[in-house]
Amino acid sequence: MEQMPKSKTIALRQKLIGPSCQLFFKKDPLKIVRAKAQYMYDERGDAYLDCINNVAHVGHSNPAVVKAGSEQMAVLNTNNRFLHDEIVICAEKIINTLPENLEVCFFVNSGSEANDLALRLAQIHTGNTDVIALEHAYHGHLTSLIDISHYKFNLPGGVGQKDHVHVAPCPDSYRGKYRDNQHSLDETGYLYSEDVRKICDEIKKKGKGVCAFIAESFLSCGGQVIPPKNYFENVYQHVREAGGICIADEVQVGFGRIGRHWWTFQHYNIQPDIVTMGKPMGNGHPVACVVTTREIANSFRRTGVEYFNTYGGNPVSCAIANAVFDTIERENLRERALVVGEHLLDSCQMLAKKHKCIGDVRGCGLFVGIDLVEDPISRKANKKCAEYVVQRMREEHILVSADGPECNVIKFKPPMVFTKENVDEVILTLDRVLKEVRHQEHLDAKIKSIQNQPQGVPTVETHATKEHRPRRALIEETIKSI
Amino acid sequence: MEQMPKSKTIALRQKLIGPSCQLFFKKDPLKIVRAKAQYMYDERGDAYLDCINNVAHVGHSNPAVVKAGSEQMAVLNTNNRFLHDEIVICAEKIINTLPENLEVCFFVNSGSEANDLALRLAQIHTGNTDVIALEHAYHGHLTSLIDISHYKFNLPGGVGQKDHVHVAPCPDSYRGKYRDNQHSLDETGYLYSEDVRKICDEIKKKGKGVCAFIAESFLSCGGQVIPPKNYFENVYQHVREAGGICIADEVQVGFGRIGRHWWTFQHYNIQPDIVTMGKPMGNGHPVACVVTTREIANSFRRTGVEYFNTYGGNPVSCAIANAVFDTIERENLRERALVVGEHLLDSCQMLAKKHKCIGDVRGCGLFVGIDLVEDPISRKANKKCAEYVVQRMREEHILVSADGPECNVIKFKPPMVFTKENVDEVILTLDRVLKEVRHQEHLDAKIKSIQNQPQGVPTVETHATKEHRPRRALIEETIKSI
Repeated sequence: MEQMPKSKTIALRQKLIGPSCQLFFKKDPLKIVRAKAQYMYDERGDAYLDCINNVAHVGHSNPAVVKAGSEQMAVLNTNNRFLHDEIVICAEKIINTLPENLEVCFFVNSGSEANDLALRLAQIHTGNTDVIALEHAYHGHLTSLIDISHYKFNLPGGVGQKDHVHVAPCPDSYRGKYRDNQHSLDETGYLYSEDVRKICDEIKKKGKGVCAFIAESFLSCGGQVIPPKNYFENVYQHVREAGGICIADEVQVGFGRIGRHWWTFQHYNIQPDIVTMGKPMGNGHPVACVVTTREIANSFRRTGVEYFNTYGGNPVSCAIANAVFDTIERENLRERALVVGEHLLDSCQMLAKKHKCIGDVRGCGLFVGIDLVEDPISRKANKKCAEYVVQRMREEHILVSADGPECNVIKFKPPMVFTKENVDEVILTLDRVLKEVRHQEHLDAKIKSIQNQPQGVPTVETHATKEHRPRRALIEETIKSI
Repeated sequence: MEQMPKSKTIALRQKLIGPSCQLFFKKDPLKIVRAKAQYMYDERGDAYLDCINNVAHVGHSNPAVVKAGSEQMAVLNTNNRFLHDEIVICAEKIINTLPENLEVCFFVNSGSEANDLALRLAQIHTGNTDVIALEHAYHGHLTSLIDISHYKFNLPGGVGQKDHVHVAPCPDSYRGKYRDNQHSLDETGYLYSEDVRKICDEIKKKGKGVCAFIAESFLSCGGQVIPPKNYFENVYQHVREAGGICIADEVQVGFGRIGRHWWTFQHYNIQPDIVTMGKPMGNGHPVACVVTTREIANSFRRTGVEYFNTYGGNPVSCAIANAVFDTIERENLRERALVVGEHLLDSCQMLAKKHKCIGDVRGCGLFVGIDLVEDPISRKANKKCAEYVVQRMREEHILVSADGPECNVIKFKPPMVFTKENVDEVILTLDRVLKEVRHQEHLDAKIKSIQNQPQGVPTVETHATKEHRPRRALIEETIKSI
């Protein structure tokens, strides 16, 4: 499958691909040549247990999905100006998982395209332009979405905050503005929602109305944050009173990832006006969807402006999405996410008892975060520890990543075929890695000593000539010597 | 392949899919269940000769493309944060077709995503926001692109013209502001480019600079318009003098459609700063690309903001794009476009001598337009005639469409596997259809009489019960009776 040596792939990548497109493990990136279920394989045939690719929802290279895509591709792939069965079957499957008010689908190619259309629908329907989004939120790579994504526009080189954008505090009861060590969870939910009410009031004071409130139902880039139970209910009420509509961004967290429900917003007592879905929908194939109410769809229709998306809802994309739906049901992947996810959560909580660098463990189903801290009282984020864990786990051939505003939250969002045995492997390894960093005071010295040794961190130029996993051996030696 | 009767597909579509997503032949839409090369087949097995689906560039269900996609799908489909060979091979193929200054690729999922990123790159690089686009131009369905697409924002229900958007006249020497019956072609090119210079001057007068000039190299939605030879060269000079960069939108017209060149901008003596490509790139699969200069890519890099596009440049998309490239070369499809396209153009010009409703025939390769007029002197657009032609050709099982600001231009942009025999079939049929409308004064009466007959235009509710092609028989009777 490999068509050139890794060194050449790296050289061509550096030469030809935009330098803003970043690689995982920049200093020694992985070349992945195949993947199956919850495993990815590099060019040497080494397997990596995949805890991060939520897009490969029903498992990498899922045979049923591949079959559906290949068969449809061989027969027809055209635009939705022609009638086709796959698109209406897909729409029916989606609608059947949603509350009754959500009854009209627009098919697009990516979560970004979905969120852009959602905002456009909101603007047309409400006639307003002021959007409320959350601190640390990410909603996509398009211009309109970077504008509302605090995670992006607020970066040092970011575009900054536009006038029509309002940022509400991230409803994170662990490390946000209102915390569970000062308030009850209900109180934090109420206080966070009050901040949204205040934004609504300010918009109203200016004689304007709200266009939309948009939020992920659980926040992923924000650091695997689970808003308090009463948060969205209160927020939706305030937003609607101010003339706005409510958009649930389910691009990362939808399609049964949390187990109990198809959609994470169903964890709350709310009915969004628009739901956007993407990533897992095509198991890697570019397909996404915006679902909304008849009323909002009709507002768009009344403009007389056609919506045409060249590939949106094409027969191949929809056949694949239908196969993803069927696979989730046939293989009981939602139940599995619940059972395996609970085991993961329990195991992480056990680990938290052993390692004081684990400040918080939170999650639901196969959406779990481990919040690493310098000490559990101050809750000061421990980014270095997270970096160390991600790197060391990779050396142990387990792929995890870190996110959150301070990059200190280890994220788990594996393919839904993840097993209890996989959890045990991850936990055992993580336990071992965290033991290495148990003595916080030694961490800096360790990393420093590794970095100072020339073969410690292979560079892009030379790594292809390195021996297998030199860094691991090196670290083991380093640790033994401490 | 059909999973439900057409009537049920229609009913579900009406119920579940956004009403702004329009069907071809709204009153009696086509249900297409399979397609091969330049033919599409409806649920009854009837074949339609496809003159409109430029997306199916190397032919519907092209076996080499299907094989590449299916094989890659079965092995790996993941994001480009992992190294993979297909993406760098694809980038290399693209770069090899372009001038030296265009050397950095960003992979995305659609022409819309490509144009959005192009504008973003332009803003970051120039620090300016004022965009110059053309009258009647269409650059995509995203918020940022509808803002610059006169074809969309200027509709009665459109969003209107934003302050940062400037619309230059469409460089159409047949029915635009400056015409070939008043000026030489060179003069029209100069005059149209002067209008862009004036816009640049106005922007400069306000103490600002230009962000970007964006145009399709040949204008498709604008009515198959071919700008004069000297137009872009002059325009690019003015735009660059005003601090702007130049974007060539090749989403519709790229990948050898015009035969002589890989990219239509190469028809002109210009070097764009950014080229966007999409539709034909994946032969129906969602893949697109932005290619730019090292300098512009570095401006983006310097912001420190990562560009991550979940599916952009994934192994399946790139394997498919690579197969499209290889197929174009292996099957000499550019040469074929040139030869078949010349035959199409010649044949249309022959037809123009017979039918005074053909005001202009223009094109290059397999990008051809027939401009239908009420009379050749005034050049008044004949929309009714175009509607009649599109409908009648469909009854003859040939798919053409009409576009342009007055919907009077019959567009040909068939799959590149189109043959001379296909051209002859189209021309013979078109000749026959145009004979039917030869007597302009009878046209209205004919259409009216057809519409007044209850079975004439099957409605969405009842058409499934209609006999095969009732309208054709009806029209033939009508014509005989005249």
